[in-house]
Amino acid sequence: MRVINFNAGPAGLPLPALERARDELLEFQGSGMSIMEHSHRGKEYDAVHEEAIALLTKLLGIPDTHQVLFLQGGASQQFAQIPMNFLTPETSADFLMTGVWSEKAFDEAKYYGKPRIAATTVNADKRYTRVPRQDELKVDPRAAYVHMTSNNTIYGTQWHTFPDVGAVPLVADMSSDLLWKPIDVSRFALIYAGAQKNVGPSGIVLVVVAKEFMARGRQDIPKIFRYSTYAENNSLYNTPPTFAIYLCRNVLSWIQGVGGLPQLEAWNRQKGDLLYAAIDRHPEFYRGPVEKDSRSYMNVVFRLPTEALDEAFVAESKKAGMVGLKGHRSAGGIRVSLYNAVTVDNVRVLVSFMDEFVRTRG
Amino acid sequence: MRVINFNAGPAGLPLPALERARDELLEFQGSGMSIMEHSHRGKEYDAVHEEAIALLTKLLGIPDTHQVLFLQGGASQQFAQIPMNFLTPETSADFLMTGVWSEKAFDEAKYYGKPRIAATTVNADKRYTRVPRQDELKVDPRAAYVHMTSNNTIYGTQWHTFPDVGAVPLVADMSSDLLWKPIDVSRFALIYAGAQKNVGPSGIVLVVVAKEFMARGRQDIPKIFRYSTYAENNSLYNTPPTFAIYLCRNVLSWIQGVGGLPQLEAWNRQKGDLLYAAIDRHPEFYRGPVEKDSRSYMNVVFRLPTEALDEAFVAESKKAGMVGLKGHRSAGGIRVSLYNAVTVDNVRVLVSFMDEFVRTRG
Ligand SMILES: Cc1ncc(COP(=O)(O)O)c(C=O)c1O
Ligand SMILES: Cc1ncc(COP(=O)(O)O)c(C=O)c1O
Ligand SMILES: [Mg+2]
Ligand SMILES: [Mg+2]
Ligand SMILES: [Mg+2]
Ligand SMILES: [Mg+2]
Repeated sequence: MRVINFNAGPAGLPLPALERARDELLEFQGSGMSIMEHSHRGKEYDAVHEEAIALLTKLLGIPDTHQVLFLQGGASQQFAQIPMNFLTPETSADFLMTGVWSEKAFDEAKYYGKPRIAATTVNADKRYTRVPRQDELKVDPRAAYVHMTSNNTIYGTQWHTFPDVGAVPLVADMSSDLLWKPIDVSRFALIYAGAQKNVGPSGIVLVVVAKEFMARGRQDIPKIFRYSTYAENNSLYNTPPTFAIYLCRNVLSWIQGVGGLPQLEAWNRQKGDLLYAAIDRHPEFYRGPVEKDSRSYMNVVFRLPTEALDEAFVAESKKAGMVGLKGHRSAGGIRVSLYNAVTVDNVRVLVSFMDEFVRTRG
Repeated sequence: MRVINFNAGPAGLPLPALERARDELLEFQGSGMSIMEHSHRGKEYDAVHEEAIALLTKLLGIPDTHQVLFLQGGASQQFAQIPMNFLTPETSADFLMTGVWSEKAFDEAKYYGKPRIAATTVNADKRYTRVPRQDELKVDPRAAYVHMTSNNTIYGTQWHTFPDVGAVPLVADMSSDLLWKPIDVSRFALIYAGAQKNVGPSGIVLVVVAKEFMARGRQDIPKIFRYSTYAENNSLYNTPPTFAIYLCRNVLSWIQGVGGLPQLEAWNRQKGDLLYAAIDRHPEFYRGPVEKDSRSYMNVVFRLPTEALDEAFVAESKKAGMVGLKGHRSAGGIRVSLYNAVTVDNVRVLVSFMDEFVRTRG
């Protein structure tokens, strides 16, 4: 029996995407082998690769000015690869600091250029409970790019209006909220996302990059690290993680089948609204640190009155068939990740559990 | 019906390893989810991760002086990551040039230091038909390391005695022959291999590194690119490609079950000997360019008298249930990859086909 999976990433995947993988694991479309045993230069894999790109392009409405790339190394490698491509020791990039992942991206950029903080919401406890307001941004118009984290997986905050950074290229780590709703891709010079939350398994990073921005990339770095190498070779310069891309294809095809991003947004809003309503019904018991305007629809964080209660909550929810509710090791408390594979019904089960938990333990 | 798969990589995997993956794809060990939906910090995945490391350590007899790491980006990323870690603009590394992959490794090293050619067997046609002899090596004792390619996937050559490079650390790209037989790991400072030939799916690179060598690595490069970061975090600094590692675990566990590397070596020698005997029975028809001492037991290359016959060979072998025999796009002709998942019986089928093909078309 499958459990209700609120993992923060790697996360639950839509059952139909997994069933499809299982059913053809030994024999892909009558070809006598698994898709993972096919050459990455053969026609069977090629069709999967192209379909994954086409589906992502259609779902996100990616314009011709942009290109989809598949990379490896996790989002963490992007923290280094972006400045390697777009900075020199003399140039700077602006960072909007909203959590642990922004900080890591900032730290890796120091090896290649001069990262600068253009806004931060860090508080006296070194924590973050909101994203910056537009009037708090101090963007340097000479910056090579502005880096932001669209959803803060650990602190449970999310940008609900993307910042206006003028003519400076905007780069966004969307690892934990890509595909949660339709977005205007044309506003971004580069979007990247580790797949393991909303799109697929770990081991594959989706990149959507503006061709014009990419053309500014350095050519004096190794070929394997240049975005332009991936672009020129349609992400087949070397062997891509074929099975991971195949699984993303299955998930993207499922998204398309259920109605695309407008449908996912409707479900995701319903899920988040149900859960935040439960928190707000018992504000003394379920303590959400995040300011309302910045609440994330992907990762919902809260604490109970004591750590012992946090632990009891995790243990009892597990008995009720729900896993993944323990907060990140650096944050503690409870974290509920509501990625696309989590259903509205899953959230209803959690909310009933929460109401009951307050009644008996509150 | 599964075909006989002679693909060069991604390559066929042992059926039991795939069946195990299929059987628990939706439900890993009663946990209510797929292994790919588990957190990389949870106990279920952790057991798989540790088992993969333990199996590789046992199979290869990896001594305590060395550590197993899991990286991403393909072997091609290692071409750049090794010099990034171990060279400076002032220091040099020596390269033993034996094919396309050695050349690519050499080219990427130029961005970080001074790669130098310590031996090459390139001929007037810019091709390679053997590996160097010991007396052809001109190793600079001040080199930071010597880089070699143990098996040349495209040219079908293989080192049967590893070179003696004195006190200089030896780094080997074993992408296409790791685990084909037992080796003495202690002779190497760093071994790396993209898994997609002998060990698993694409999207995961196995590294075995000497701790002493690793300690010399640069600390002024991004954290995500340092081998020491992977070592200190047991390859869990960021999210590893969990499902790819799980599949490697399945393959390693299969290897262990059939008798380990001595058994694989026996089978691999039988396979190669059968196939080279067939070539040598018809030397006018099956033309193997590789010098006998350098013949690879993993990738066997030959040409037929005309390109039309090469094509007919590929087409007719396909009708007979065999795929993957077309040579690399840069080399042409026929290539038979005999990785661990290929059985002796598979090779017998091919050899009968070859004898018959000469009889009817020769
Ligand atoms: C927003 C964000 N960025 C980056 C990362 C790091 O991703 P990876 O582990 O793939 O390097 C994470 C991981 O959870 C994340 O949530
Ligand atoms: C010996 C060798 N090294 C490196 C590579 C490149 O591997 P990847 O495609 O994983 O980057 C290959 C690919 O076939 C190879 O055979
Ligand atoms: Mg965060
Ligand atoms: Mg967790
Ligand atoms: Mg080669
Ligand atoms: Mg091929």
